[in-house]
Amino acid sequence: MSNIRHALSARRADDFAAWYQEVISAADLAEESGVRGCMVIKPWGYGIWERIQRLMDDRIKATGHDNCYFPIFIPLSNFEREAEHVEGFAKEMAVVTHHRLIADGNGKLIPDPEAKLEEPLVVRPTSETIIGDAMARWIQSWRDLPLLTNQWADVVRWEMRTRMFLRTSEFLWQEGHTAHEDATGAKEHTLRMLEVYRACAEEDLAMPVIAGEKPENERFPGAVETWSIEAMMQDGKALQAGTSHYLGTNFAKASGIQYQDREGSQQYCHTTSWGTSTRLIGGVIMTHGDDDGLRVPPAIAPHQVVILPMLRDKPEDEALLAYCETLRAAIAGHSALGEKVRVLLDKKPGKAATKRWDWVRKGAPVILEIGGRDMENGTVSLLRRDRLWAENGKPDFAAPTKEDAAASIPALLEEIQRALFDEAAARRDANITRDITTMEALSAFYDDAAKYPGWAEVQWSRPTGAALDNVVEKLKALKLTVRNVPIGAAPADGACIFTGEAAVERIYVARAY
Amino acid sequence: MSNIRHALSARRADDFAAWYQEVISAADLAEESGVRGCMVIKPWGYGIWERIQRLMDDRIKATGHDNCYFPIFIPLSNFEREAEHVEGFAKEMAVVTHHRLIADGNGKLIPDPEAKLEEPLVVRPTSETIIGDAMARWIQSWRDLPLLTNQWADVVRWEMRTRMFLRTSEFLWQEGHTAHEDATGAKEHTLRMLEVYRACAEEDLAMPVIAGEKPENERFPGAVETWSIEAMMQDGKALQAGTSHYLGTNFAKASGIQYQDREGSQQYCHTTSWGTSTRLIGGVIMTHGDDDGLRVPPAIAPHQVVILPMLRDKPEDEALLAYCETLRAAIAGHSALGEKVRVLLDKKPGKAATKRWDWVRKGAPVILEIGGRDMENGTVSLLRRDRLWAENGKPDFAAPTKEDAAASIPALLEEIQRALFDEAAARRDANITRDITTMEALSAFYDDAAKYPGWAEVQWSRPTGAALDNVVEKLKALKLTVRNVPIGAAPADGACIFTGEAAVERIYVARAY
Repeated sequence: MSNIRHALSARRADDFAAWYQEVISAADLAEESGVRGCMVIKPWGYGIWERIQRLMDDRIKATGHDNCYFPIFIPLSNFEREAEHVEGFAKEMAVVTHHRLIADGNGKLIPDPEAKLEEPLVVRPTSETIIGDAMARWIQSWRDLPLLTNQWADVVRWEMRTRMFLRTSEFLWQEGHTAHEDATGAKEHTLRMLEVYRACAEEDLAMPVIAGEKPENERFPGAVETWSIEAMMQDGKALQAGTSHYLGTNFAKASGIQYQDREGSQQYCHTTSWGTSTRLIGGVIMTHGDDDGLRVPPAIAPHQVVILPMLRDKPEDEALLAYCETLRAAIAGHSALGEKVRVLLDKKPGKAATKRWDWVRKGAPVILEIGGRDMENGTVSLLRRDRLWAENGKPDFAAPTKEDAAASIPALLEEIQRALFDEAAARRDANITRDITTMEALSAFYDDAAKYPGWAEVQWSRPTGAALDNVVEKLKALKLTVRNVPIGAAPADGACIFTGEAAVERIYVARAY
Repeated sequence: MSNIRHALSARRADDFAAWYQEVISAADLAEESGVRGCMVIKPWGYGIWERIQRLMDDRIKATGHDNCYFPIFIPLSNFEREAEHVEGFAKEMAVVTHHRLIADGNGKLIPDPEAKLEEPLVVRPTSETIIGDAMARWIQSWRDLPLLTNQWADVVRWEMRTRMFLRTSEFLWQEGHTAHEDATGAKEHTLRMLEVYRACAEEDLAMPVIAGEKPENERFPGAVETWSIEAMMQDGKALQAGTSHYLGTNFAKASGIQYQDREGSQQYCHTTSWGTSTRLIGGVIMTHGDDDGLRVPPAIAPHQVVILPMLRDKPEDEALLAYCETLRAAIAGHSALGEKVRVLLDKKPGKAATKRWDWVRKGAPVILEIGGRDMENGTVSLLRRDRLWAENGKPDFAAPTKEDAAASIPALLEEIQRALFDEAAARRDANITRDITTMEALSAFYDDAAKYPGWAEVQWSRPTGAALDNVVEKLKALKLTVRNVPIGAAPADGACIFTGEAAVERIYVARAY
């Protein structure tokens, strides 16, 4: 099919990074804002985020959480309290030092020296400590437990090298924080939220993931256990798409989160935290995008069906628009994937072909083009975004009757949702290697010039401390990292690829974002 | 009914400000965060905000807007460009000057002197200028117009005196920004969004408002016209609950928002902006709250019906919970106000009476208490929050059968929604005075020790410039402000109360938040 003229100029196979940037621009998802490291999320990108947010929020509420909102500013003293926390990630932060601007007399504005804050404030990089403070106020007895909270907010981490959606100084996320009576309840909840993330990634984003526990060196600072979902991008790299932490009593002790137990004595709570972010959109792009742009899974598509009337700026347009409107109404009356179908009749001025390629690049799941001839025949020209090209290298239009088109939309959307997942899962499964048992073989595998090495599932002895540092160093030389120990993997039955000792479990090794 | 023992200690009639604070605390809506001027919005308060947000967002989307997201930080130069803008309100702002914290060697953290920003960044007090920049990039020709955008975000304005929900340094809001080909289109849109705000306030929040145009002195800096919705609080003061601005080409010129018109020449767009915020929750409290706490209109209640089983920590509890669960499921199957009924079965440990009063203070519209005797009789004990007390000074429980209770919930919720609006509208209408025609009478009216003076609708000549300043000064001496010139008021037929000239329109005068 070399005669296809793809809608993008960059090819995934040639330059994955350039292709990624082009998709973001061509699908009109986001753009640089001019403010260092911050992006503008445009309507189609933000619409996808709103869909993800709503579906994720429904899942979070269904597991018993309430949403709250905590202050954007965090006092410095909160960070001082938690030296380990600061050591971990929170050094590069936006620091507010003044509360007033004044004119300097030369047409410029400057922070007013008279309005210097006594204690600087940090724009939240996470709300861990301030939510901990609130929990300490809110929890008195076992009757208040479990306390299940979640927050949707913007957070800021000053990043030196940024890439849109994947690593930006400002990003949008949800952070869940819960407090429990004991380790059992908290650990169960950590896994419950990991499962929420897995289900949202796989069922809503059609993005297959591996859920498992992070090794010690990849734990969130202060966590007892860190779990993640990891997705394979089309370049074979891993994307950590969500994490869930069991924090033991470490954070409870730092914030004084205590409760009176059933016997009347004071106990520290066991807490959890877990988060996902706009990074998920980066995952969707690198999972489902192709050389024609983005393909949005129907469950998270702001518009699942786009109707494009071939307007000619002539009186006949009116009848055509009326025809399209009855089709729109018929489709909007159907439900798919548990919700009313989201269908747009795009009346914007412009050539139909131009608009078609705009929607192809944006990745609307189904495009219906309707011209005068379609109307005469009582048909529509239907294009599936997930299977764009026919054998002859032309867009693969079907021509159902208007009635059949409307009636078949729900099943079609559900089929596209499934097909995108299946395609990604098959690619992922085909690119996991399980037969590497030595460091030499691992090195050879990743040294190979092949552009798509994928992941290796290896057996290891779960080293800790210095022995683990040694493993991490060895992998770093190959630009590799340990991802997670997958839940439900086959038991270990060999030797540790790193230490030669008896292996205790299997772990994924991969290059990663 | 003096024998009633109300659930709050403060009374509206005695100390409205203290009562307001007590409602916020007793209804568990929000609390001080410890960070100056920033509040923590707790689950019930945030749940109300989520409801307002969803209903408002649906209305904003139904009028053709897409949501976007713009950076939290705004470069200083954006403010320098707009001297007038800065003059107006944007001096007290949170200024970020550093991007790193380091230890000072004495266990403290300080902004790293090596990490000073070349240009300080401001935490957005509004995104007006940064959205203007984006519009200038996005708009090329008349085909791109109208451009209809909206953003939901947190914003920061450093406030010296704060009051929760009404005036906080950080608050949550939506800001809409649109660009049009000409004045006609932009002015129409300004009023369209004002109507969206009126409908949301009256239909969703059950809060009657007066929609009208602000006088010149109350215009948003740089606006050609500013319109508002004004609600009367129970202390007779006005609350500006939303504003919509027609900006002419002023902001388009400042940001370079131009388009090529149908004839091929470059034109400046006419723009609008409009916003509402978490202040609306303050309006809901002061419109619907009573001496027992908050009363949440069903349309914005996170839980519309709360079922309270009278658990006794005995084996019989199981049957009672099963009885309650079938009731919950029956109610949840119904729809009211266009959505599925939101019903909570509250299984939290605790005495039923304590929990009842918690939900009364929170203002859940309908409370269903169910004990062993109710179960035996096949009934439920139903309490309407909007009509809490019987003539005998006790809570006014009804005792319908379980089936009748479930079946009647939709109509009951709709009746409560209507009753809350009617009650507020009747109070508002009873407290508008239209017969004041002289400054002396106005002064006497507001000087009166009466605690509930309400608003005066007076006739005026629409003075401008120095004449208007003079009016504003006179009113200020009486702690009064001009609110707005109501749409659809009777035509003027008398003399201006301020200047004695022939009046041209009617305007509201009131004390205000």
